[in-house]
Amino acid sequence: MTEHLYHKYVKHMTLEEKIAQLLQLAAPFYDKPGDESEITGPMEELGIEYDTKRAVGSVLGIAGAEKMMAVQKEHLASNRLGIPLLFMADIVHGFKTIFPIPLAVGCSWDPELAEQSAEIAARESAVSGLHVTFAPMVDLVRDARWGRVMESTGEDPYLNAVFAKAFVQGFQGDNLKEDVSRVAACVKHFAAYGLAEGGREYNTVDLSERQLREYYLPAYKAAVDAGVEMVMTSFNTVNGIPATGNRSLMRGILRDEWGFDGVVISDWAAIKEIIAHGAAEDEKEAAFKAIYSGVDIDMMTTSYVNHLPELVAEGLVDEALIDEAVLRILVLKEKLGLFENPMRGADPELEQQIVYSQEHRKVSQRLAEKSSVLLKNDGVLPLQADQQVALIGPFAASGDILGWWSWQGSQETAVQLGESMQKVSGDPGKVVISEGCSIDTITEAGLAEAVKAASAAEIIVLALGEASEMSGEGGSRSDIRLPAAQLELVREMKKLGKPVVAVLFNGRPLDLHGVYDEADAVLEAWFPGSEGGAALADILYGKVNPSGRLSMSFPYSVGQIPVYYNAYNTGRPKPAEHTDNRYISQYTDIPNEPLLPFGFGLSYTTFAFEGFSLSSDRMSADRPLEARVTVTNTGNMAGTETVQLYIRDMSGETVRPVKELKDFRQVQLHPGESREVVFQIEESQLRYHHSDLTFSSDPGMFTVYVGANSRDTQSAAFRLV
Amino acid sequence: MTEHLYHKYVKHMTLEEKIAQLLQLAAPFYDKPGDESEITGPMEELGIEYDTKRAVGSVLGIAGAEKMMAVQKEHLASNRLGIPLLFMADIVHGFKTIFPIPLAVGCSWDPELAEQSAEIAARESAVSGLHVTFAPMVDLVRDARWGRVMESTGEDPYLNAVFAKAFVQGFQGDNLKEDVSRVAACVKHFAAYGLAEGGREYNTVDLSERQLREYYLPAYKAAVDAGVEMVMTSFNTVNGIPATGNRSLMRGILRDEWGFDGVVISDWAAIKEIIAHGAAEDEKEAAFKAIYSGVDIDMMTTSYVNHLPELVAEGLVDEALIDEAVLRILVLKEKLGLFENPMRGADPELEQQIVYSQEHRKVSQRLAEKSSVLLKNDGVLPLQADQQVALIGPFAASGDILGWWSWQGSQETAVQLGESMQKVSGDPGKVVISEGCSIDTITEAGLAEAVKAASAAEIIVLALGEASEMSGEGGSRSDIRLPAAQLELVREMKKLGKPVVAVLFNGRPLDLHGVYDEADAVLEAWFPGSEGGAALADILYGKVNPSGRLSMSFPYSVGQIPVYYNAYNTGRPKPAEHTDNRYISQYTDIPNEPLLPFGFGLSYTTFAFEGFSLSSDRMSADRPLEARVTVTNTGNMAGTETVQLYIRDMSGETVRPVKELKDFRQVQLHPGESREVVFQIEESQLRYHHSDLTFSSDPGMFTVYVGANSRDTQSAAFRLV
Repeated sequence: MTEHLYHKYVKHMTLEEKIAQLLQLAAPFYDKPGDESEITGPMEELGIEYDTKRAVGSVLGIAGAEKMMAVQKEHLASNRLGIPLLFMADIVHGFKTIFPIPLAVGCSWDPELAEQSAEIAARESAVSGLHVTFAPMVDLVRDARWGRVMESTGEDPYLNAVFAKAFVQGFQGDNLKEDVSRVAACVKHFAAYGLAEGGREYNTVDLSERQLREYYLPAYKAAVDAGVEMVMTSFNTVNGIPATGNRSLMRGILRDEWGFDGVVISDWAAIKEIIAHGAAEDEKEAAFKAIYSGVDIDMMTTSYVNHLPELVAEGLVDEALIDEAVLRILVLKEKLGLFENPMRGADPELEQQIVYSQEHRKVSQRLAEKSSVLLKNDGVLPLQADQQVALIGPFAASGDILGWWSWQGSQETAVQLGESMQKVSGDPGKVVISEGCSIDTITEAGLAEAVKAASAAEIIVLALGEASEMSGEGGSRSDIRLPAAQLELVREMKKLGKPVVAVLFNGRPLDLHGVYDEADAVLEAWFPGSEGGAALADILYGKVNPSGRLSMSFPYSVGQIPVYYNAYNTGRPKPAEHTDNRYISQYTDIPNEPLLPFGFGLSYTTFAFEGFSLSSDRMSADRPLEARVTVTNTGNMAGTETVQLYIRDMSGETVRPVKELKDFRQVQLHPGESREVVFQIEESQLRYHHSDLTFSSDPGMFTVYVGANSRDTQSAAFRLV
Repeated sequence: MTEHLYHKYVKHMTLEEKIAQLLQLAAPFYDKPGDESEITGPMEELGIEYDTKRAVGSVLGIAGAEKMMAVQKEHLASNRLGIPLLFMADIVHGFKTIFPIPLAVGCSWDPELAEQSAEIAARESAVSGLHVTFAPMVDLVRDARWGRVMESTGEDPYLNAVFAKAFVQGFQGDNLKEDVSRVAACVKHFAAYGLAEGGREYNTVDLSERQLREYYLPAYKAAVDAGVEMVMTSFNTVNGIPATGNRSLMRGILRDEWGFDGVVISDWAAIKEIIAHGAAEDEKEAAFKAIYSGVDIDMMTTSYVNHLPELVAEGLVDEALIDEAVLRILVLKEKLGLFENPMRGADPELEQQIVYSQEHRKVSQRLAEKSSVLLKNDGVLPLQADQQVALIGPFAASGDILGWWSWQGSQETAVQLGESMQKVSGDPGKVVISEGCSIDTITEAGLAEAVKAASAAEIIVLALGEASEMSGEGGSRSDIRLPAAQLELVREMKKLGKPVVAVLFNGRPLDLHGVYDEADAVLEAWFPGSEGGAALADILYGKVNPSGRLSMSFPYSVGQIPVYYNAYNTGRPKPAEHTDNRYISQYTDIPNEPLLPFGFGLSYTTFAFEGFSLSSDRMSADRPLEARVTVTNTGNMAGTETVQLYIRDMSGETVRPVKELKDFRQVQLHPGESREVVFQIEESQLRYHHSDLTFSSDPGMFTVYVGANSRDTQSAAFRLV
């Protein structure tokens, strides 16, 4: 596949042209048609010359078919060998049709719908001229302080891997050349970015390689196995070495071990940042470390352009290394069909038709419905259409419901909660809206108005949360409670003695004290995307039965972080029953358990799990087991249950998690309806990384758990022989 | 050394006798003289037979010369081969003369005084019949939630190593056989127990081996290099394997690499707890893993006693392994002179004279003076003898100032703050004492009394803190603020408009919001030990000029944990000047800096650092540098400054800390006096662990910092060639 590209292009390229192919520039470099009489603006800032720009390989952050086509056209006219540009951008949870944030998607436990959302995001992106999206982000997360937890599907390696695969398939489809409505995916951030110490953005990551392989790598690996075309490096260090200059990670694990032969791109300026990390004295050393480690594209620094030539001249870098990187980029361009069809899917007319179409937004609404998690309901939900409702809070009539990473999205057209509730109730007068307070400020006047509105209502719905910029990249917070102004609003509303429902818009698990304990019902809406209000109104009024299940634990408080379900037992686990024994693994002032565990979520109906059994109490590699359980809708409304299968290896060469999600099944059941769910359990699911990093299973006892979440389970045991 | 012991004892011992030699029983097993007609009490509970008890090797927690002698006598009478018992106990910061907690000792930056305290602790222990103390604890700590931070000297590997050596020398002296007033030391907890995840006691530890060697191992290594006789395993896992069954840790690093040939003991029941960890199916496997990993003594489980015989019989454990463990224990007994002198230092008469003697308590007082850290002083300290003072708070007249691990100490005779202040002021009427509130409860009556006392005073001194059981083993807390009752007391006192001084008694760095910002002066007293009140009164009244320097950062809040000075820079460090750039490594709601940094502490006088210079801007392995700085006491009182030398390796193969303490010097200066401090900087100080774990220095640029703490420094640069 690469030989003809080598002969057609690489062998004719100058060293400088090759190196420019490895450079990625951002949109501002293409804002004005090239007046080459002087170097100004971003080019001056970065120190790029026109010869370089003409030979550059890819561009970041341009969207819109016309703009893209103009840039591509100009580029082809000026590029000596006629090599088209690759257009890339961060399309993380939708292009203009914004889907719920990935953490919410994780809570849907619905990979098919997730795949569909990625397919739509690809379609809108491709028609707007994009070829690659910097997604999916599959970093495993355990620290709600970190702003980018919103971008991950959560704390579980298996669930993350399932979604990683779904997203890659949704973005890429089966054939990028033939299907120009798809885009190449770029899984990120390799590796373990989610373990940023203290949840502080870009902070140090340190962990054992065993832990890296057990928890953090599986989702990246799943993306690679699903054929992801690109991998992005992470900003953090791994084992003391910045990921972007980490040869054992990039060449050792990613390329040699996993066989990834696609394009590796640095995160924004991450090659140059090896200097700030203190792992390179200057840009030259940074460039050396990056190319040596297998990073093909230098995003937005001149490290490669300015220093690879001398590194080659000095014999420190073999030109073959550079040829290899160039070839990978050219292969991707060929896979996308860009040599024959440099405009690819870009189509200004079609763009008008399909981007943000009704059809796309319907899927977004469906995903928002499936992503919302009912956390509490003391009989006050669903609302009745004839109830007089006061909808109060900063998110009552707000379009800030798209979440971070929605740069093409429009808050102005996002469907708000208030308007939707008025529509669904059938009588706008039934839903009186009052802001009450802003995100972080409460005034007497605002409160007075809210009290007035609430006093006239039968039930109070509070729309609370964090502004979208409080999470996302650079959005780390040491305090994960709602802002004090909103907690005061809750207290004041509670004083009125009426039922209170809280609907939460946020990008991270929060410490919900002051909300969860005060409200009669709590619905976690996350940032639900373009059609969020419509989805939530349908849920609140019972037109849709909520089915989301948390994919990340809600900590009891920030002082409990990290807290996650798949932890190790310790040598002195806290017993379930009360004990006065001080010498157990615990905090003395709070429970060990999170406020809300992984997998948790309520429904308007109830489900019973009965008849849980294993087909045998022994298994072997060639004799898998079956686990069966019958789930019955024991309530009065049709609903969806997510049947979760966890396994615990009771004893290993190394310690093993107290529970690990191994499979799950969603079942839709009418009232009174039952279904038997059958899980196959195979030896391959029991493998883990030993202290010498071998991946295998150990004979011995295992416990199987089924349940509606990671806490409330039934169990049975078997022995692997 | 071992051959004669082998011939004299081991080869005559039955397998059962050998294995019993590896067992350690606790004091309750020796509470009553052995009536062998039936097995009751602790023996029944643990399942120990009299044959085993007669052959047992060591005992834990018996103190008092008479009791010890009685037990030893009975043991020798019943032990077939006349092998004496080893008596061990946790003498962590003093026997009956209680010294400040180790975290406070760390803040003294005075290893000589620390050594003296250990020598006194040894003397009191030895005369009371003890042979081994389970100290020093040298676990590096970064998480103030963990209760056992009180037992460590802090967050710095170098400072911890300095104190590890000092404690070992103080406990052991030069010759345990000749000097029966010393005891063998047992460094703990090997390894990295201080990194318990989330600061939750006994929780999982995971880190890279590079990080383990860079930060966590140096202090244990320093103890081994200082000749420590014993090492205790830790409760946690390291690389997924419980430390107590971790062969690569115990045999690989400790024995083979470091050449440690002393006795390794499990922590309490830690062998059996390998089962709870899930790294052994049963006690037999746990016993196998522990002996295989080189654990000689099984503290308080029957894993060895019940299962080593069958493991030997089945050929799974070579009897030579057991002989080796027995021999190590016998060697220690011989080193202690127990074969000739089984009562060793135990001496009921001398015990009466020297234990808790005036002389010993004076040293404790001196160490408390040096350990207290003045955190803030807006001109209100020192107090004047004629000032009318209201001393208010739960620690105003409390003996709970010894801290955790002071089981032989007496709160009743501990010198309280109130009585001492009354004495030092010269007029008891000048210091009116009122509790105001208890540790965690405030009542209207209590508050009213405090307000009355404070209203009549010129200045309010608040004695606040955590009860000693709020830290120590099993004392992990998710909330590190003072209890709400005490914060309310501060607010109420502040309302009176008088100067407020806070004196803090606590075992961990606290989130001091509500105290530090309200009070005009803050003195961190820690748990200062038997003479704490006297030391603090002398400081408060200016008879002693405080000189303590924090050996652990005080976090801004619990949401900032872990925060420590010797961190890595990250690729996007937060600049010193303000920036609106979101994309830097930070929390958006609090500073990156801790409230109070490592090395910080004030004095009643001021010091100037001038003329900082390096002898050259180049160094090499054979050409060390000198760094010179002149320190001047620029205030009006004699005082002690701790001149701290930090180095940063600007670029390494791996990332390097932004600062690392490499040396320090304490200088006592009279007002106006100057002294030049000279530090030698050698290549050996620049070595670090590379990604392949080699320990060496890299040529390149280094920055040297000197200053009074880790934040406020001057710098100079040199190149290592």
